Amino acid sequence: MERIKRGERLAAMARILTAAPNRLHTLGEFCVLFDTAKSTVSEDIDILREAFARFNLGTVLTVAGAAGGVMYRSLVSPSSAEDTLGELAQRLSEPGRLLPGGFLYTADVCSHPDTAGRIGEIMASMYCAESPDFVLTMETSGIPIALMTARALDVPLVIARRDSRAYEGPAVKINYVAGGDRIETMTLARKAVRPGKRALIIDDFTKGGGTLRGMAEMMNEFDAPVVGIGVMIATAEPARKRVDGIRALLTLESTDAESGTAVVRPMPLF
Amino acid sequence: MERIKRGERLAAMARILTAAPNRLHTLGEFCVLFDTAKSTVSEDIDILREAFARFNLGTVLTVAGAAGGVMYRSLVSPSSAEDTLGELAQRLSEPGRLLPGGFLYTADVCSHPDTAGRIGEIMASMYCAESPDFVLTMETSGIPIALMTARALDVPLVIARRDSRAYEGPAVKINYVAGGDRIETMTLARKAVRPGKRALIIDDFTKGGGTLRGMAEMMNEFDAPVVGIGVMIATAEPARKRVDGIRALLTLESTDAESGTAVVRPMPLF
Repeated sequence: MERIKRGERLAAMARILTAAPNRLHTLGEFCVLFDTAKSTVSEDIDILREAFARFNLGTVLTVAGAAGGVMYRSLVSPSSAEDTLGELAQRLSEPGRLLPGGFLYTADVCSHPDTAGRIGEIMASMYCAESPDFVLTMETSGIPIALMTARALDVPLVIARRDSRAYEGPAVKINYVAGGDRIETMTLARKAVRPGKRALIIDDFTKGGGTLRGMAEMMNEFDAPVVGIGVMIATAEPARKRVDGIRALLTLESTDAESGTAVVRPMPLF
Repeated sequence: MERIKRGERLAAMARILTAAPNRLHTLGEFCVLFDTAKSTVSEDIDILREAFARFNLGTVLTVAGAAGGVMYRSLVSPSSAEDTLGELAQRLSEPGRLLPGGFLYTADVCSHPDTAGRIGEIMASMYCAESPDFVLTMETSGIPIALMTARALDVPLVIARRDSRAYEGPAVKINYVAGGDRIETMTLARKAVRPGKRALIIDDFTKGGGTLRGMAEMMNEFDAPVVGIGVMIATAEPARKRVDGIRALLTLESTDAESGTAVVRPMPLF
């Protein structure tokens, strides 16, 4: 094989590391790929780390020791999170987004890969230190954000359903109190979660916190500790939600039915 | 600003381009970011293209002219698609995946960011030339795959629902024939799709093709042409689906209720 230049190695490493955030790659892996010495790969990693830091593109971490290696984390800086949330708050405060009944139309924002990706990176930055083993969400509109959070953390996504579908096998079913004191049903396949695994609950929207509480209670049934509850938007009222420990990226402060406008504000995060 | 070395530029460019597949970046953007000449950026792009090609990491395309620039496409090579699908077929053929009633448990595979990402890249490679304007799926289990397809194509994801939720505003509602000749309902928010936009329909599983046909009919209501219908798994029987033009990545050939095992085979793609 002809000698591979540093520039090519760095381009390839940047692609390989960022394609799987939070995943450890051994230095040996790159030695084989590039047919080069460990010391050279180490130097490459230093340059990569510096370049990513300089242009605010995330963090390159090295883990020492026999089980060590290098990994990429898409840790979002406070200032870039602020920018993202400020922009989102502005979009969601545009006239016409407020639907009859005081509902806010967010489907275009939540399910766009770009926005979902950026929200996912912010959530992952917030909860990375809690080392969740999986992300849990309840169908449907929170799935894109939850998936991108799981991607940034390199963990599986688990989706709770309204009905237990025949094709998911034996399931646990619970009732929970949703908006307006309605009783709703939530089901989760038995094989989806193993006991002791650490759950990060992610959803797109909460008012009373009922669905989030339902997910926390579901995790109780699976003996899975909840290490965090993150939502994209929470309403300011009621201030007291049905479950504690919710962290929201945005607050829906108030709504004006007359003009069809909501006031959405970014929350301080870090 | 101190001079930025080629290696650093390449690392940063690799990260920026691959973070948003299929999106055009101007050379000027990189000239400003790196405080360097256009000719230097052009050279960098040539090295990047070569490195990505050498290590099978996707394609770097340059578009000439005033509106030109550079973009990354995560085009999957036939051999790497074959590897991915072969591996998936093997996982889905493991004993115990077949549930009572002949259903195949795929939730863990479909909703894992890794698998969803790889399936999304294969779908995007298959349909990129059709220039879809958005990806359409029907809730719930196809959403992760559809989102990752949309991400690889840099287009929005649109999610059809079973019920029209109050918070999505005025919606179009249709009935369609699902498995076992059941009549089901599908709804889609009016503001989700504009007339003339090109739809790529993506789902995780089909037997008779009823839901896929429902989505195609829904697009009819929106005057949105369907440019492709991709599913992760289609059953071999019935061979004739309710809608034409479905391309499946995997075929569910047969099932053995006794051992709880399904036979899943990868399909030739390119």
